[in-house]
Amino acid sequence: MRMEEIIDTVAQRVEQEINNSFEIEASGRHIHLSREAVDALFGEGYELTPKKYLSQPGQYAATERISIIGPSGVFHNVSILGPVRKESQVEVSLTDARALGAKAKLRLSGDTKGTAGIILMNGSKIYVMDHGLIVAKRHIHVNEKDAKKLNVTDQEVVKVQVNSERPLIFDDVVVRISPKFRTFMHIDYDEANACGFTKGTRGRILR
Amino acid sequence: MRMEEIIDTVAQRVEQEINNSFEIEASGRHIHLSREAVDALFGEGYELTPKKYLSQPGQYAATERISIIGPSGVFHNVSILGPVRKESQVEVSLTDARALGAKAKLRLSGDTKGTAGIILMNGSKIYVMDHGLIVAKRHIHVNEKDAKKLNVTDQEVVKVQVNSERPLIFDDVVVRISPKFRTFMHIDYDEANACGFTKGTRGRILR
Repeated sequence: MRMEEIIDTVAQRVEQEINNSFEIEASGRHIHLSREAVDALFGEGYELTPKKYLSQPGQYAATERISIIGPSGVFHNVSILGPVRKESQVEVSLTDARALGAKAKLRLSGDTKGTAGIILMNGSKIYVMDHGLIVAKRHIHVNEKDAKKLNVTDQEVVKVQVNSERPLIFDDVVVRISPKFRTFMHIDYDEANACGFTKGTRGRILR
Repeated sequence: MRMEEIIDTVAQRVEQEINNSFEIEASGRHIHLSREAVDALFGEGYELTPKKYLSQPGQYAATERISIIGPSGVFHNVSILGPVRKESQVEVSLTDARALGAKAKLRLSGDTKGTAGIILMNGSKIYVMDHGLIVAKRHIHVNEKDAKKLNVTDQEVVKVQVNSERPLIFDDVVVRISPKFRTFMHIDYDEANACGFTKGTRGRILR
């Protein structure tokens, strides 16, 4: 094989690999607040201040940070993700849940029926969530345009291979497709540590 | 199919599954001490007190517990596993390493060359380890008699499937065979949380 052919073949292979793969992001513990919760914690009509926009359009980490209080532990200075949502939701890792002394169920974001409650605190203001504490189920946000390339359908459950210093294959990964999404897989820090995640780590769907 | 045939088939399948699988254990952060370290932390010639014997014969959790001190964090009341070893070694999760502010390398137990150091403390007594802080690489202890059943050889690297609420397949799992071992796979708490581990969770080798 001539050098140029080799270069072409390698370039094609790299392009193929990039096309069939996606970047992974690790989410730390964070809070989504309802209008009611923002009012209770910051005052009537208060607007959160976007500090940093995230990979999903319109989503941002707010300047404001608050505490979450569980039966046997507290986390201060926890990130709030805006904009406000219909329902408040607190996402933690299982490691966090153990520290809080709370039983957090494994759920997809938004599916909070029957989950544990948790207390939010901002200074001397308290907001009691009677449910909404979850460990987020791993998932891939897929942009409509990437769905064909990755050969996936909405709500499909796939296996995702991660090649790293600590390689593994995540099973039971839910695909969510929307024209609004940017294509990223989301895992929590327990999962990130288990798969040797570092910034830029990519996953690919295993058939 | 007659009822009895169904029962036989199911029983066979269950037996097969148990034969081809093994129990998983999650290890919390812990310390192995050398004779020198025991002398420094507890006094010359001190003997650790076995509190609870572990799955691997002769290995025990000691009554004595000490602190590990990193550049930006401390863990108190950390378990010591006996008996004494040739070299001291501290095993933590990546979550722990972050809290300690230390860079723990991913290594098999015993392979500590070039790893970070850490400080051990018992009351006012200090012992400085200039290396030996690791994140333990996942592995399976296999008893010689089980090796044939599982169709594995010593030092072989395998994939292990875990079926749970959070199923995944661990890649790069090292098999270690000895007539002294009892057959158990060992993972740390980051990995345990990522795979939805609960007591009794089993793994099986994926070919």
